[in-house]
Amino acid sequence: MRELSYRMLEMKASSVRKLTKYAEEAEAKGKKIYRLNIGQPDLHVPQEYYERIRAFDEPTVEYMPSNGIPELLEAVEKYYKGAGIDIDKKHIYITTGGTEAVMFTLLALTNPGDEFVLFEPYYSNYNTFFTITGATPVAVTTYAENGFHIDRESLEAKITDKTKAIFITNPGNPTGTVLTKEEVRMVADVAKKYDLYIISDEVYREMVFDGREITSFGFLEDIHDRLVLVDSVSKRFNACGARIGAVISKNQEIMDLISKLCQGRLAVSTLEQQGAVGLYSTGYRVIHQIRDEFEKRRNVVFENLKKIPGVFCEKPEGAFYMICKLPVEDAGEFLKWMLLEFDDNGETVMAAPGDGFYATEGLGRDEIRIAYVLETDKLARALQILAKGLEVYNNKIK
Amino acid sequence: MRELSYRMLEMKASSVRKLTKYAEEAEAKGKKIYRLNIGQPDLHVPQEYYERIRAFDEPTVEYMPSNGIPELLEAVEKYYKGAGIDIDKKHIYITTGGTEAVMFTLLALTNPGDEFVLFEPYYSNYNTFFTITGATPVAVTTYAENGFHIDRESLEAKITDKTKAIFITNPGNPTGTVLTKEEVRMVADVAKKYDLYIISDEVYREMVFDGREITSFGFLEDIHDRLVLVDSVSKRFNACGARIGAVISKNQEIMDLISKLCQGRLAVSTLEQQGAVGLYSTGYRVIHQIRDEFEKRRNVVFENLKKIPGVFCEKPEGAFYMICKLPVEDAGEFLKWMLLEFDDNGETVMAAPGDGFYATEGLGRDEIRIAYVLETDKLARALQILAKGLEVYNNKIK
Ligand SMILES: Cc1ncc(COP(=O)(O)O)c(C=O)c1O
Ligand SMILES: Cc1ncc(COP(=O)(O)O)c(C=O)c1O
Repeated sequence: MRELSYRMLEMKASSVRKLTKYAEEAEAKGKKIYRLNIGQPDLHVPQEYYERIRAFDEPTVEYMPSNGIPELLEAVEKYYKGAGIDIDKKHIYITTGGTEAVMFTLLALTNPGDEFVLFEPYYSNYNTFFTITGATPVAVTTYAENGFHIDRESLEAKITDKTKAIFITNPGNPTGTVLTKEEVRMVADVAKKYDLYIISDEVYREMVFDGREITSFGFLEDIHDRLVLVDSVSKRFNACGARIGAVISKNQEIMDLISKLCQGRLAVSTLEQQGAVGLYSTGYRVIHQIRDEFEKRRNVVFENLKKIPGVFCEKPEGAFYMICKLPVEDAGEFLKWMLLEFDDNGETVMAAPGDGFYATEGLGRDEIRIAYVLETDKLARALQILAKGLEVYNNKIK
Repeated sequence: MRELSYRMLEMKASSVRKLTKYAEEAEAKGKKIYRLNIGQPDLHVPQEYYERIRAFDEPTVEYMPSNGIPELLEAVEKYYKGAGIDIDKKHIYITTGGTEAVMFTLLALTNPGDEFVLFEPYYSNYNTFFTITGATPVAVTTYAENGFHIDRESLEAKITDKTKAIFITNPGNPTGTVLTKEEVRMVADVAKKYDLYIISDEVYREMVFDGREITSFGFLEDIHDRLVLVDSVSKRFNACGARIGAVISKNQEIMDLISKLCQGRLAVSTLEQQGAVGLYSTGYRVIHQIRDEFEKRRNVVFENLKKIPGVFCEKPEGAFYMICKLPVEDAGEFLKWMLLEFDDNGETVMAAPGDGFYATEGLGRDEIRIAYVLETDKLARALQILAKGLEVYNNKIK
């Protein structure tokens, strides 16, 4: 039979999901798994989401305008103005999750050979869209030892004639790093110097701890013509399953191309857009609840990790993820062992192997990503299991 | 600023939407427009859709499995078995509309230079996905005079070394043509002879009139390893805004690649999948209601068109579209004139220019696509206006 897409054949499956079959095996044997591997929080969706959806009663469920329903565009505009980012409805297209916003942005920007500079470890699902568009990700490595912060020199070292854009996730997944004002300014300056676009995925925008201020690229007036923001209700309002996001830019040329893509895919779900209007109607009530809850969890996870011998991480600053180094050679093997061979009173823990978040071969092998998406007592128990597992594992192989 | 995607820059905007700004102008002047230009029926969504959605009350709206929720996969499997197409849950991935199914299929199949043979006039939104994937559409022209039916000779004439697949829409949009059993068999034989895949977009599957039987490629056992079916609830259940579709194949290699794409985009809306379970629970009740309603409308439109001097079309056999030839040189110009310069008692008509559905430059210039998505009395009135408009237009230019 004729060959399928080479690009798609070569693409690796998501590392977050690699352990899934071992988890299924473990569960089949009756083990209880604390899942710290996926970005799916357990928090409740605000009731306003359901209220708005249940109130919708049109006899026909029509295709909505391809850029989004007016009420939602208005709600997003209002949210942005309230956040101090001056954009208008016409700079916003509603998308099917932040995911579609990423895909459309890369499609609009990419020509064969184009390079996108980003900081590793990074959200590995971007790779799907690099594959689709034929873009080449070029990774600037950041390190646990500096809390995964960035610097100008290593960024500039990666920029070539082929660089099309700098692609930022802020706050970071999988790092939980929140860029400082100075870092954001630095990236903007580099983008201007080399005439690059900036894609800033800010789906975790408000999840910043210890009284930090959010540092959106949208605050910088002098780069608004080269900026595309990726946004989503998934994390901001605990509504991952709603699949509502947005792509935002003041660059009309980019928006015109994305508009063709929006038209090609016709529309975003009618009801989910209604639901999202309900979500935005909660203002900062829910946003701050979520931030405070994750800050509490971050504290529990960090305090408990610090106590485990040989484990290293800086205190994460935002989002609900962190990368931590384990005293093992191959964290993926260790996580597999935790699922298949280990339990503490019938319970074990699952996290995501760190290497899947790096583009550079060989990096992150002793790291895991923890998503602290469980209640604090469950987190404490999960980390106790992790500590015990590490001890047994390292005694065993010695 | 650095150049955006050449491919996206070159892509034409959808022809169906070209007239939108003139329609807005006309409405701003208080004209009433009968819209026969879009594939958005006025029929009601079954109540089961809302019931199922309103009953959903989980505290968290999580990401669902990337291939779809088990209840919906089961419902689709059951529907297929009932339709005489032997597929299993594992051959089905739920997608965000049939649109995403088309996109994923082309992404999984396409390498640079690949050609996809399809029959023009064809659904022009496919072009978005040809552009994205870099696939080349190669069109076999079909003609109003044969009711847009197909033949082996002209199909084989377009097949080259680069042909990857034959891409069928059955029943057809914009033609309303339903392939006969013999045509379906012929396409399958050609695909086998040249070792090609078949993509069959059957989103209008049950909308076949005059007692015709549906003719799915899924009925043919001997090509199931080279077949991908595109499906959707949009038209089958009047739920365009739900954005729920499916991609179906027994070719495991293709499904494995599509699975990576499904994982990359995480999930399909949780609530809309619930709604779709409600839709499928209606069995053939709604499906047959819809078919019967469109058959009635088809009759009204066809009878009225036949009476207009110089208008030509064969009786459409399915879906809710038809292409008809008008006694004008440039149907796009005529439609624009209908919006801006003409009215009958303050009312006018909008349809889609035919040329947008052809890949071959210059074809379809005297054609329009009519989507009969209004009630029969409105359709009759719309065609009366069309007849009057044609008369005035042709007297004016003589
Ligand atoms: C950094 C980042 N961007 C984008 C997304 C996509 O989210 P969604 O498509 O649900 O909006 C995620 C989800 O985990 C993410 O972590
Ligand atoms: C032939 C054909 N295929 C696919 C679609 C896509 O429909 P949806 O994405 O709503 O399922 C349409 C919509 O008009 C269509 O006409």
